[in-house]
Amino acid sequence: MTQYDYDLFVIGGGSGGVRAARVAAALGKRVALAEEFRFGGTCVIRGCVPKKLYVYASQFPEHFEDAAGYGWTVGEAKFDWKTLVANKEREISRLEAIYKRNVEGSGGETIHSRAVLVDNHTIRIVDENRTVTADQILIATGGRAAVHPALPGHEHCIYSNEVFDLPELPKAIMIEGGGYIAVEFANIFHGLGVETTLVYRGKEILSRFDMDLRRTLHETMEQKGIKILLHSVSQDVSKRADGRLDVTLNTGQMLTVDQVLLAIGRTPNTENLGLEAAGVEMDKQGAIVVDSYSRTSAGNIWAVGDVTNRVQLTPVAIHEAMCFVETAFKDNPTEPDHDCIPTAVFSQPEIGTVGLSEDDAAKRFKHLEIYRTSFRPMRHTLSGRQEKMLMKLVVDGDTRLVLGAHVLGPDAGEMAQLLGITLKAGLTKDDFDRTMAVHPTAAEELVTMYKPTYLVKDGAQVEN
Amino acid sequence: MTQYDYDLFVIGGGSGGVRAARVAAALGKRVALAEEFRFGGTCVIRGCVPKKLYVYASQFPEHFEDAAGYGWTVGEAKFDWKTLVANKEREISRLEAIYKRNVEGSGGETIHSRAVLVDNHTIRIVDENRTVTADQILIATGGRAAVHPALPGHEHCIYSNEVFDLPELPKAIMIEGGGYIAVEFANIFHGLGVETTLVYRGKEILSRFDMDLRRTLHETMEQKGIKILLHSVSQDVSKRADGRLDVTLNTGQMLTVDQVLLAIGRTPNTENLGLEAAGVEMDKQGAIVVDSYSRTSAGNIWAVGDVTNRVQLTPVAIHEAMCFVETAFKDNPTEPDHDCIPTAVFSQPEIGTVGLSEDDAAKRFKHLEIYRTSFRPMRHTLSGRQEKMLMKLVVDGDTRLVLGAHVLGPDAGEMAQLLGITLKAGLTKDDFDRTMAVHPTAAEELVTMYKPTYLVKDGAQVEN
Repeated sequence: MTQYDYDLFVIGGGSGGVRAARVAAALGKRVALAEEFRFGGTCVIRGCVPKKLYVYASQFPEHFEDAAGYGWTVGEAKFDWKTLVANKEREISRLEAIYKRNVEGSGGETIHSRAVLVDNHTIRIVDENRTVTADQILIATGGRAAVHPALPGHEHCIYSNEVFDLPELPKAIMIEGGGYIAVEFANIFHGLGVETTLVYRGKEILSRFDMDLRRTLHETMEQKGIKILLHSVSQDVSKRADGRLDVTLNTGQMLTVDQVLLAIGRTPNTENLGLEAAGVEMDKQGAIVVDSYSRTSAGNIWAVGDVTNRVQLTPVAIHEAMCFVETAFKDNPTEPDHDCIPTAVFSQPEIGTVGLSEDDAAKRFKHLEIYRTSFRPMRHTLSGRQEKMLMKLVVDGDTRLVLGAHVLGPDAGEMAQLLGITLKAGLTKDDFDRTMAVHPTAAEELVTMYKPTYLVKDGAQVEN
Repeated sequence: MTQYDYDLFVIGGGSGGVRAARVAAALGKRVALAEEFRFGGTCVIRGCVPKKLYVYASQFPEHFEDAAGYGWTVGEAKFDWKTLVANKEREISRLEAIYKRNVEGSGGETIHSRAVLVDNHTIRIVDENRTVTADQILIATGGRAAVHPALPGHEHCIYSNEVFDLPELPKAIMIEGGGYIAVEFANIFHGLGVETTLVYRGKEILSRFDMDLRRTLHETMEQKGIKILLHSVSQDVSKRADGRLDVTLNTGQMLTVDQVLLAIGRTPNTENLGLEAAGVEMDKQGAIVVDSYSRTSAGNIWAVGDVTNRVQLTPVAIHEAMCFVETAFKDNPTEPDHDCIPTAVFSQPEIGTVGLSEDDAAKRFKHLEIYRTSFRPMRHTLSGRQEKMLMKLVVDGDTRLVLGAHVLGPDAGEMAQLLGITLKAGLTKDDFDRTMAVHPTAAEELVTMYKPTYLVKDGAQVEN
């Protein structure tokens, strides 16, 4: 191995790359990691972290409103976008430094440069105009918002990259897309007082989630005042003399807004990386093809995280990275486990979900028991807010296994994390029933639904 | 059976009594329930429900403060106690009506009167000056705040009953006690702007909880500005000419406050119930003695809930009531399960806990692994609030069983509910490790603590 400069060279300083570099370095391996932009990757710099901070920011107007029912009179509240952006920037810079330090603290080297493959053992450090060699190479370059060159006027649109740092808060925004990024930003902008329209070509937002959650979230967002246009696609964006944007939709509808945010998908970062020279195969979407151990078609080159387009989530990238180190450096071949991943959407209200949706379960199981409840969270009894919380368990009627757990409402993400343990461990509805309630909580509903709300037999809903 | 007026007579319209009456009536049994005060019991009228509403009310000032870091400038906020009391009253009246309706809707009869036993089949309806007979009798009369006649000036003090409906918010309050009721009210009053002193005779608040939680909550409450005096007991309360109260403690310290709230324990409601006449035994504390099926020494008389002084929690009373109906009316003897009850304290920050504390586990297991993390919740990165969240798993080093899970911080109660499922089902630390994180949440820390923070061997803490 010593004929190479490094035992491991990692390209990309996001969650997956940093974890792999750090853990391998801690094993005593000679490790370098090259990042061309900022350490932390999408998650820290323009994803999970700033997104959730903006969600918090956007929730305050509801806190102010809710206070009245509890006896509080609150003076006028004003929002300053630039303060939020600056404070966010300070926080992500802090995290960025931690990510970098984590690699260096474990004995890894960090390189601030674009890095491209020359061959399957040689990497060119572009900004320093030199090459290095490595025994093993890990590609963890992530992804980015998909652009939409076919849309006339797309050059006037912004993406999730820019949206965090807009010079000013728009008065009106159109967001195109129906995935979690589009939905989360629709709620953020609405909460911050922006007139918000969500435009989505599909029949309902958030495809692949449980339809109950999708419909109920949709209704709640509309009640809040977010416009949602389904079966709709923008066909033309043009800039007016006053700087605002006119958008024409396929339905003939026209919108005039200050910003158009396109959140229509993600593209793996695989261009101009030298992948062909190194013998690394990609699929039609440009994602790196890997085997179940994250190994690419070039045997000593591996890839983890969004660049492989398996499951685009931070914890998954980290998990893949740790499995990679086990496999490549600890003589312990370990396949990442992509089964039964709990997840959250930081919409308002929030979604937390794990396992099968009712519709997916109905395709695979003959007898389902569906336990479903919808109620007003206690906080809203005095606030007067009409939002309902939704909870649903999808249970295999034959084995009693809980196949899916779906929550819409406050703290749903926290609940999904812990429900994830129960589904991953293969617990049954009886395990839920045996658990004493904690009162007063919302989650107690999940252990006190003793009778199915309805059954699904051979795919059809029947009365219980 | 038909020689009796009723198959079941329930005394007490709280959570346990109402559940038993409702379920038995739904089985077609002839059921009556007598309640002398208000339906809903402690939980609805002067416990869990109003308590949590007041917790919400008391959290708004922190919301207002936290908003600044997110770009919000909030005008002056004013609090009106009378509005909160009135809105609380409206909500608990709504719930009270639902409780009553639940019994009647199932075919049970409700009687608004005190009811006392004449013998083991005869009940006197005091307010209507008549007697009725029943085959089976359930006593679910609950408990009340313990009074403190030995304290000079105790007549100037209030209890958790009165505290919700004080004519005005005190400027300064002293709360005596170290249990969850004392701690919750200390946080409520402090949050509402009241100068708050907690006086407790013990060495640390919240005995029986994990010491880590107790200490960290104590510190956090003091940081907020709550005074906590340990090893302290009030010895005299006297009323001044201006109506305020002077309190002298055993330590010699003197306090001047507007109200003194005594939260020093709970007493079962068993006086003047005719228990002796019916042959129902009580213990030294006045609690009704029951066997493992909730049956008293009088074979056809049963008792559930706080009056039995087993575990004083609403869901436990409900569970005991349901087991009672199975045993007495469905020919399915069912013992209530009091093992591994998850619970929450709605302190600020909140506690959620299930299973063994580290200290208790150390007495029973030779090798413990302790997984512990303390971090600032993401919300507080921009709010600037210094409160830390604490999470701790107590794991049996031999079997990997998770013996205890302890959380201090936002949403800890919701987490305890779902952690409760995992501990009740006997899941191991490996089950936690196998679960994918949900990012960014707080609960993800519970599934990403891969290495023990320290070990406990034969009761002594050792480095990992």
